[in-house]
Amino acid sequence: MRGFTYLSKVLHSHSSYSKLLVLCSVSTGGLLVYAESNVESGKQVVEQNQPESKKKRVVVLGTGWGGTSFLKDVDISSYDVQVVSPRNYFAFTPLLPSVTCGTVEARSIVEPVRNIIKKRSGEIQFWEAECLKIDPENRTVSCRSGINDNLAGQNDFSLQYDYLVVAVGAQVNTFNTPGVMEHCHFLKEVEDAQRIRRTVIDCFEKSVIPGLSEEERRTNLHFVIVGGGPTGVEFAAELHDYVYEDLVKIYPSVKDFVKITVIQSGDHILNTFDERISSFAEQKFQRDGIEVSTGCRVTSVSDHFINMKVKSTGKHVEVPYGMVVWSTGVGTRPFVKDFMEQVGQEKRRILATDEWLRVKGCSNVYALGDCASIDQRKVMEDISAIFKAADKDDSGTLSIEEFRDVLEDIIIRYPQVDLYLKNKHLLEAKDLFRDSEGNEREEVDIEGFKLALSHVDSQMKSLPATAQVAAQQGTYLSRCLNRWDQCKSNPEGPRHFKSSGRHEFLPFEYRHLGQFAPLGGDQAAAELPGDWVSMGHSTQWLWYSVYASKQVSWRTRYLVVGDWVRRYIFGRDSSRI
Amino acid sequence: MRGFTYLSKVLHSHSSYSKLLVLCSVSTGGLLVYAESNVESGKQVVEQNQPESKKKRVVVLGTGWGGTSFLKDVDISSYDVQVVSPRNYFAFTPLLPSVTCGTVEARSIVEPVRNIIKKRSGEIQFWEAECLKIDPENRTVSCRSGINDNLAGQNDFSLQYDYLVVAVGAQVNTFNTPGVMEHCHFLKEVEDAQRIRRTVIDCFEKSVIPGLSEEERRTNLHFVIVGGGPTGVEFAAELHDYVYEDLVKIYPSVKDFVKITVIQSGDHILNTFDERISSFAEQKFQRDGIEVSTGCRVTSVSDHFINMKVKSTGKHVEVPYGMVVWSTGVGTRPFVKDFMEQVGQEKRRILATDEWLRVKGCSNVYALGDCASIDQRKVMEDISAIFKAADKDDSGTLSIEEFRDVLEDIIIRYPQVDLYLKNKHLLEAKDLFRDSEGNEREEVDIEGFKLALSHVDSQMKSLPATAQVAAQQGTYLSRCLNRWDQCKSNPEGPRHFKSSGRHEFLPFEYRHLGQFAPLGGDQAAAELPGDWVSMGHSTQWLWYSVYASKQVSWRTRYLVVGDWVRRYIFGRDSSRI
Ligand SMILES: Cc1cc2nc3c(=O)[nH]c(=O)nc-3n(C[C@H](O)[C@H](O)[C@H](O)COP(=O)(O)OP(=O)(O)OC[C@H]3O[C@@H](n4cnc5c(N)ncnc54)[C@H](O)[C@@H]3O)c2cc1C
Ligand SMILES: Cc1cc2nc3c(=O)[nH]c(=O)nc-3n(C[C@H](O)[C@H](O)[C@H](O)COP(=O)(O)OP(=O)(O)OC[C@H]3O[C@@H](n4cnc5c(N)ncnc54)[C@H](O)[C@@H]3O)c2cc1C
Repeated sequence: MRGFTYLSKVLHSHSSYSKLLVLCSVSTGGLLVYAESNVESGKQVVEQNQPESKKKRVVVLGTGWGGTSFLKDVDISSYDVQVVSPRNYFAFTPLLPSVTCGTVEARSIVEPVRNIIKKRSGEIQFWEAECLKIDPENRTVSCRSGINDNLAGQNDFSLQYDYLVVAVGAQVNTFNTPGVMEHCHFLKEVEDAQRIRRTVIDCFEKSVIPGLSEEERRTNLHFVIVGGGPTGVEFAAELHDYVYEDLVKIYPSVKDFVKITVIQSGDHILNTFDERISSFAEQKFQRDGIEVSTGCRVTSVSDHFINMKVKSTGKHVEVPYGMVVWSTGVGTRPFVKDFMEQVGQEKRRILATDEWLRVKGCSNVYALGDCASIDQRKVMEDISAIFKAADKDDSGTLSIEEFRDVLEDIIIRYPQVDLYLKNKHLLEAKDLFRDSEGNEREEVDIEGFKLALSHVDSQMKSLPATAQVAAQQGTYLSRCLNRWDQCKSNPEGPRHFKSSGRHEFLPFEYRHLGQFAPLGGDQAAAELPGDWVSMGHSTQWLWYSVYASKQVSWRTRYLVVGDWVRRYIFGRDSSRI
Repeated sequence: MRGFTYLSKVLHSHSSYSKLLVLCSVSTGGLLVYAESNVESGKQVVEQNQPESKKKRVVVLGTGWGGTSFLKDVDISSYDVQVVSPRNYFAFTPLLPSVTCGTVEARSIVEPVRNIIKKRSGEIQFWEAECLKIDPENRTVSCRSGINDNLAGQNDFSLQYDYLVVAVGAQVNTFNTPGVMEHCHFLKEVEDAQRIRRTVIDCFEKSVIPGLSEEERRTNLHFVIVGGGPTGVEFAAELHDYVYEDLVKIYPSVKDFVKITVIQSGDHILNTFDERISSFAEQKFQRDGIEVSTGCRVTSVSDHFINMKVKSTGKHVEVPYGMVVWSTGVGTRPFVKDFMEQVGQEKRRILATDEWLRVKGCSNVYALGDCASIDQRKVMEDISAIFKAADKDDSGTLSIEEFRDVLEDIIIRYPQVDLYLKNKHLLEAKDLFRDSEGNEREEVDIEGFKLALSHVDSQMKSLPATAQVAAQQGTYLSRCLNRWDQCKSNPEGPRHFKSSGRHEFLPFEYRHLGQFAPLGGDQAAAELPGDWVSMGHSTQWLWYSVYASKQVSWRTRYLVVGDWVRRYIFGRDSSRI
């Protein structure tokens, strides 16, 4: 079969020759009839607004982590897949902080969507446009191409869908702090990173021109980062390296004027990480001379000053700056807000889905990644139904055996139960049945059962807004859609406690693979699965190898590794382009 | 001594340790006292507006080919050198067309000025600013930093100079054609190339979105290049490769709608090249399907149409387009125009210098590269003085011997004489003395002498506006300045015919090293010294090796070669960033 695969590839790359071909398969000795539809021909522009009769149409909004991982796996022989995104590329966001200082080039971390879908036989269609409105009633999305040149033709179009996958990510959230939109930099998009890079150089160039006072030079070289989360911390570290490894050599006259400050409203930076990592980072920043102002809340930003309130003293402080990067908060995009109103979610902060990523309040719409949040069902909401379903002999009490029989389904349906068992170091179902004195019991009634599970829901955690979650959700969703027919007839999910039968699919389950926090000076910290914590230079090497291996294509891998090598040999570029 | 050089380099790169050091030179066994001033210390900000008492200050405007090559050689132990340029990098312009399509990345062809001057001991000062006005009376230049952020401090400053080097290049010239400024792309700066790259992608993305008519798709994919000179032709070739090697694979539905047109007012493209190259290019373009419209003059450009006049028929034609690149004409920058008015050159099109690159009409100002033109002195203007100086015995006639004695100085002072001799295949001075019938003569009087040299000035050619010329002029000028004192006492130039003595310096002499015209499909044409012409694939390899070797730094060489390799393996990127 390898010969066949190879031939099919060759044919593919010369699609103009693709015809009905009869191939003699050498390895099998058999005869294969190979027909390749001439999808690349100019004449075969499918009429995009009328879904093909046979295939259901899946419209995907967004080509970030969630959207792309969905596209990589979805079965195009069963679905007509159409993708809408205002950026025609996928961006490897974990390397965005490296782009701000030129450790890695912007182009090295992006991969054209069309390259990704080309590998998927070219049958996925992509439109570079923004979705402006979702109409769940009529199953359409309205889109607009953002190309504001004088090009011919309309920019607006709409698409019908059978299934809609919303993976549009989040936007920045300024918490309505005055002046932030106007005066701060953000770090969400590739363009943001490029802009930051230019502005850093501007600050240096401006601070050396003749006639400035020392005060003015110092102001221009004061770099402020608002937000001590992983992105803010990584940017501060990158900037520190850039300044002290590269820039001070070429702007020697102002090297003593540079200051980097991280403003964090909480008590510690990296406070979602293990405490050891958080204090390691704080110590490293102190040694590096990066100022960390914890317990400070930014109240406004003007063209020359950043104003903040020190929580402990209640005092207001005004700090002059050269550049501010706002690196905190995620917000919902306006058109998603509008959609939420249409499906009765107007009161929520973020679009809610169930555990199968189905948007609550409408049908055939899925949402994943940063734009949505799984509304995990509480055990307590269903406790009576669970009890009833488990109590097979209808005795009004649950025996250990009866409980054991349903426990697996409970754990799948309510993953907080598993977390609770692990956290409490309970090994067995019967441990849940112990009374308040710790004595074993063989049976419990409904009240006892409620008591036994009463603390379980406290273990519910919403998933973090990370690439890992989005990517796993994309893969999960494509697998579900791919096995639609199969699972309709052979459901694989947990049992319905409130009715009979089973859910078609297993609910989404997140597997945390750990997280990194690069801290500059070729040191990093990492939280690995199983509560492992690793810090220092070797962790940075682990970081290099993980990030190189996680690249979406060999091209970006080649480029990213090339950039790292280039930086080691030649340093970072300081041209203002 | 090699040990010493190495040590001094090491010391240099760790300037914070640089002290008065006593070094034992191993190779010579002698004792060397080595003092390095701590130029990189933050405290030693020299008071920039008061020239140091000892050293004369040279202010250089521009960091293009001319400015940079001057900076590489100028002797900083004799001069206080200060550089002003609105871009803090040098750009390798011959690779700009490759940047438009991502064959080479923008960052690979730029080198920060500060890196270039860092190698020169860090004593050259650079300001990222634009010169707004030259005041030759008071020997000052007024400058403004273009950083339009809210950064602290004034943007304006002025510098005094003892010598001024103007190397600010040219700007685009639209010949006042209506609509060109508003609707056309240019290809002069790195940003232009980046913008073109994004626009090409926009044209493709727009042409595939749903709901456009075939007509509209075709319009959006019509790429027009105005100007059939080397830059326009190279861009057309690059674009063709980009489209057919990369883009058609990912935009298959519109591949038959793409059209590339080169509009040339002359009868042939590449008309400054050898005829063989010009017709080779035309044939290649025809095979490639690139339309060449010769004999057409663009009269105006509107948001959707380009209007031109066909010279042969006098008819006006209106052509719809997706993108136009205007690649013809060079113009003088406004502040140079203003300077020309101050020095009595208001009637000229371009700043004139003499053969020593001194701006005519003022003192201590030099100009080189695209912003200036050498006003070559005519033999006929000085013919009587030459005759008088050559006629040693004051006989009123010039003998062959007398003429031979001054010929070398004549040839140096009036290079057109040499060109004339070569073009007429005259081997000897006495051949010039032949009468109209071709008979040899031993002596000529002033009228005969005038007649003999009467056609010489027709050989005068102004130098082309190329990187080669600018770079050679920069090197030439720095050598002159470096040997100022020496040449004042020991002039090395040709004799003054009108007065006595000699010119201090030899006039600038241009050495043409040939030129390339890349034509796409890994083919190029080249005109090499000695009327050699070479075309085809092997020439492209010559092109690769020449362009790799000409890079200003090892860093850009590594990057450019890396980009070429990347393109061969993975193709060009089509992400719209
Ligand atoms: C600087 C930075 C560093 C990060 N580092 C890490 C890290 O190290 N590890 C980690 O796990 N996570 C990291 N993250 C978080 C991670 O990037 C996000 O969690 C992840 O991108 C979410 O994926 P997503 O698919 O939901 O959204 P995104 O990846 O943001 O993609 C959203 C997509 O939707 C498109 N879109 C936007 N508006 C519309 C519209 N109106 N219509 C159609 N499409 C639209 C966008 O163009 C984009 O293609 C980082 C994020 C940032 C900003
Ligand atoms: C696309 C393209 C391709 C080319 N290909 C070739 C080729 O293959 N071979 C060849 O020989 N030539 C080529 N050239 C021509 C070559 O680039 C120019 O002849 C050369 O750059 C001229 O050098 P210069 O120093 O005079 O000006 P430039 O190199 O243009 O430099 C001018 C400098 O002045 C600065 N400046 C501008 N305004 C001001 C101001 N107000 N104050 C201070 N500084 C200012 C600019 O920022 C720049 O640094 C090409 C040109 C282009 C545009």
